[in-house]
Amino acid sequence: MADEQLLQDVANRLRVLSIESTNASNSGHPTTCASIAEVMSVLFFDEMRQTLSDPRCPSSDRLVLSKGHAAPILYAAWAVAGLFPESKLMDLRKIDCDLEGHPTPRLSFVDVATGSLGQGLGCAAGMAFTAKHFDKMDYRVYCIMGDGEMAEGSVWEAMNFCQHYELDNLVAILDVNRLGQSEPTCLQHQTDVYKARCEAFGFHTIVVDGHCVKSLREAFAKARATKGKPTALVLKTFKGKGIEGIEDMENWHGKPIGDKAEAAIRVIESRMKNTRPTKVAMKPPGNVLSSTGPDIIQLDKPPAYAVGEKIATRLAYGTAIAKLGANNKRVIALDADTKNSTYSDKFKKAHSDRFVECFIAEQNLVGVAIGCGTRQRTVPFISTFAAFFTRAFDQLRMGAISQANVKCAGSHAGISIGEDGPSQMALEDLAMFRAIPESLVFYPSDATSTERACELAANYKGIVFIRTSRPATAVLYDGSETFKAGQSKVVMKSKSDKALVIGAGVTLHEALAAAKTLSADGVNIRVLDVFSVKPIDKKGILENAAECGNKVIVVEDHYEQGGIGEAVSHVLAEAGGATFRHLCVRGVPRSGPPAVLLDVFGISAKTIVRTVREL
Amino acid sequence: MADEQLLQDVANRLRVLSIESTNASNSGHPTTCASIAEVMSVLFFDEMRQTLSDPRCPSSDRLVLSKGHAAPILYAAWAVAGLFPESKLMDLRKIDCDLEGHPTPRLSFVDVATGSLGQGLGCAAGMAFTAKHFDKMDYRVYCIMGDGEMAEGSVWEAMNFCQHYELDNLVAILDVNRLGQSEPTCLQHQTDVYKARCEAFGFHTIVVDGHCVKSLREAFAKARATKGKPTALVLKTFKGKGIEGIEDMENWHGKPIGDKAEAAIRVIESRMKNTRPTKVAMKPPGNVLSSTGPDIIQLDKPPAYAVGEKIATRLAYGTAIAKLGANNKRVIALDADTKNSTYSDKFKKAHSDRFVECFIAEQNLVGVAIGCGTRQRTVPFISTFAAFFTRAFDQLRMGAISQANVKCAGSHAGISIGEDGPSQMALEDLAMFRAIPESLVFYPSDATSTERACELAANYKGIVFIRTSRPATAVLYDGSETFKAGQSKVVMKSKSDKALVIGAGVTLHEALAAAKTLSADGVNIRVLDVFSVKPIDKKGILENAAECGNKVIVVEDHYEQGGIGEAVSHVLAEAGGATFRHLCVRGVPRSGPPAVLLDVFGISAKTIVRTVREL
Repeated sequence: MADEQLLQDVANRLRVLSIESTNASNSGHPTTCASIAEVMSVLFFDEMRQTLSDPRCPSSDRLVLSKGHAAPILYAAWAVAGLFPESKLMDLRKIDCDLEGHPTPRLSFVDVATGSLGQGLGCAAGMAFTAKHFDKMDYRVYCIMGDGEMAEGSVWEAMNFCQHYELDNLVAILDVNRLGQSEPTCLQHQTDVYKARCEAFGFHTIVVDGHCVKSLREAFAKARATKGKPTALVLKTFKGKGIEGIEDMENWHGKPIGDKAEAAIRVIESRMKNTRPTKVAMKPPGNVLSSTGPDIIQLDKPPAYAVGEKIATRLAYGTAIAKLGANNKRVIALDADTKNSTYSDKFKKAHSDRFVECFIAEQNLVGVAIGCGTRQRTVPFISTFAAFFTRAFDQLRMGAISQANVKCAGSHAGISIGEDGPSQMALEDLAMFRAIPESLVFYPSDATSTERACELAANYKGIVFIRTSRPATAVLYDGSETFKAGQSKVVMKSKSDKALVIGAGVTLHEALAAAKTLSADGVNIRVLDVFSVKPIDKKGILENAAECGNKVIVVEDHYEQGGIGEAVSHVLAEAGGATFRHLCVRGVPRSGPPAVLLDVFGISAKTIVRTVREL
Repeated sequence: MADEQLLQDVANRLRVLSIESTNASNSGHPTTCASIAEVMSVLFFDEMRQTLSDPRCPSSDRLVLSKGHAAPILYAAWAVAGLFPESKLMDLRKIDCDLEGHPTPRLSFVDVATGSLGQGLGCAAGMAFTAKHFDKMDYRVYCIMGDGEMAEGSVWEAMNFCQHYELDNLVAILDVNRLGQSEPTCLQHQTDVYKARCEAFGFHTIVVDGHCVKSLREAFAKARATKGKPTALVLKTFKGKGIEGIEDMENWHGKPIGDKAEAAIRVIESRMKNTRPTKVAMKPPGNVLSSTGPDIIQLDKPPAYAVGEKIATRLAYGTAIAKLGANNKRVIALDADTKNSTYSDKFKKAHSDRFVECFIAEQNLVGVAIGCGTRQRTVPFISTFAAFFTRAFDQLRMGAISQANVKCAGSHAGISIGEDGPSQMALEDLAMFRAIPESLVFYPSDATSTERACELAANYKGIVFIRTSRPATAVLYDGSETFKAGQSKVVMKSKSDKALVIGAGVTLHEALAAAKTLSADGVNIRVLDVFSVKPIDKKGILENAAECGNKVIVVEDHYEQGGIGEAVSHVLAEAGGATFRHLCVRGVPRSGPPAVLLDVFGISAKTIVRTVREL
């Protein structure tokens, strides 16, 4: 068991290493590190249960460094613990070193990427929820936040969640070091205000001298003894603590201290008894939980719809995830008080112990799901209106860096929702999800392919978006039809097709109606169900386009930018030679009946017919 | 002065009209309306100072209905006041009626669109800040929120802002009606918890019986008397209040009450003395402020850089907005604690009374700016790292529906920021801002064009994005060069160009370096500065492509989806006939020196040279 002097010495050693590594990289945030030196030392070498041989093992306590710009001290702590040589810290931020400017899961001891502030607590809450409810284990979750990021609303969404679900295995640590990037934070050292806020959000809250090892140990002990509510430790600290001439001074954010380092380190080391504590022991976890291997997740039975039957794809989504949940216990579902519209309530009815209501807080919805999905503990399906996923774009963007494994189902896509009006219509969601690196984007057009899209999503390690629609549309595929990412489907063809019309969701059905009208006039068109918007079926599109005289029309219930039209035009431009037309929603739509809106905004069968004739 | 009986009767009349109009549209949220009937009556006919002849006039009090799904009762209140006939309410949600499912500024009495929950208070805060600090007027701002949306973090960002800026002219009204869409809210009727939260965020807070006209009047009087802090009224209410058999019942969210209406209305009307109160008088505003006409905003002097001089475009942004602010007093600037990186601190230094520090809360940053820009009171320029605008995508999406007039400058775009790593690199920002309807997107490549982009932005009524870069790059244009939206610039050409290379920001400079290398080998290329990403210069691109053998290469510091490459491929596909190559960032990047990253991710001069040779 580490004594207080050793913990204080380790804290100072972490300070020194943070100064040295940021000097070596000539960039970074040493003063941000210095304010949490004591709490990092106490966490690593007294409080947390960790496994040096396998930091990501499922039994260990978790630490989320929400203030990700303090990365150098996180790296230093693992080096002092012996995970890698301290000399490696001097490769901080180099192109061939995973010790990046902000933490990412390229490192074995990082679960989620941080660096966009205010996101850590939601992920930590997901991990703590998973510990209690899915793993049923006693590992604990710690999240260190800066005071600047307490202005981010996402923090309070997470706080509300932690209160509601009584996450007493979670400790939120607020590093109140008074100074932001460009000026003091709005609350500066008003720890009483932070305390009042945390208490109002249901946290057992303790204000602590963040530079006193003894007080920190006591506070963590109190947190451990607290049942039925999460704990917040409000640490009064100083930015740049211990660095002479820099401590508590403005204009030192994100700057290495350069030639002031030597003298500063000399002073810090003069305060230490063990000047170079190395390979300091961490406490091992008590209970041991085995890792979850990758497994195949299947629909427990194939889709069972009659071709021609009218079913909304959002309804098929609910059916699908309930079936996947029946097949695999790791499948969970989360929603933001829209479960009776997205139909995730079908999952709740079937597997209530694996459904997480996140209330109207979409940033936290995604953050919690990312946390639940870390270390392969669960496979989270998240649903809300597709439009409201825009609320969580930053979480999704960071999710890609976090190598997050979450499946997002957005319902009520496009103007086809009708009367509720533009605020509820997703028309930029494809642009958003396509721009997430390594994401898959499925846009099923019937119930059968919706179920298969969910099954494909469950088995892909990464972020997947499934776009569902409000109106009931005809089933197109038999339950035996197979689907895969990057594969489109020809749903109507002849030997004399004059154009290739590509649609998805409601517009595919408009294309089929247009084909019928045109065919009555002796004009045949080929209709392609895009299904996989990303990756898009380059080969299928180009081959079918070639067979249709290289005349291609995309019709989609989405704005012009970033959707199927641009994806297809990119394919066509790279290949060259096709004639392309794009029917999509231009300008802000309005309330009205779905069929009228499709007409008014030029994505109905009528416009398709006219466009084919013009071509 | 209205008496209590009349106010209570009006409340019931509003209930009846909400039931009738949602029945007429066969969709909508009558129970959501019913819980705020009394507060709407008291607000409209006792508390607020309003101008019936010109609801958007700059002297009137403002009301933001953050719980936008209660739109029918807002419409009913204006009808009862006499703005339009009550019969028009029965056209609710029809395609040719501006009484849409959720309020939008297509209506003269709506400043900002609502319907994505949790966004109203930020906009209201911007209006209240504008009243106090820019207009220096005594109009007051009211915001009605649902209890469900109190789970949205954006609400707490706004609360923090209201506290910090002591907005005592703002009243936040919480309609705690206990029931969400799919289940009870997480706090149900725990008004004490809402009170504690609001107080912890600095609000003078009063818990009120939301169905008692007398208590509501008293509470508003107390709010009016409170100085130095905003007021929150926590209304204990019942969803569906007054509708027999439906009040306080689950499963009645977003449903017209259908054939239960007749009996329900009979009961409600039996409680009224004046059954059909019409043209009830509203109180007029005291002081009168004249409207601000549209005016031309210019740089007070032209850009003054020497061609070849190295200046970061982010620095030129700071210079530009300071100059625009010197020319026009309506120009304001807002930032989220990054002002020393985005260089908006140059504006603060020059015009400190028109700079608003919003701290690290990007949703609120955008919300406040939208509020500040309503009714043409100000022209807000907002800055933060481009990556962090993703935090506010939903606010921006709603901003388009709100006809918002905000200028967003995102700095630190792309991998060219270097060592800080992927969390700080905007690589999806163009996809996001291009997908905002009627937005303009400028991506200047030098200091001169950055200043002009800011000037163009100031004079466009709508949402504009200006993407700036971290590294210093050479000035390309003389101060006399003119720029406009939709116009690209050829920065290098010859009579024998073998390919058209399109770049922007750092990649334009890479293209110029590539041109130099190729030219030494006798291969000429044409280099195009895209400048205006949206609208994109279709004509310029096609004409130049034709003159370069229809070989087009786009090189951009952005992901493949939704950026310049897809915008250009869309133009090329519609025209047909070109060969297209796209150099962009594929996969999640990492920390490293900027020049090395450009090489590793294939967007440097080296890759351009190789691609030209391959073509």
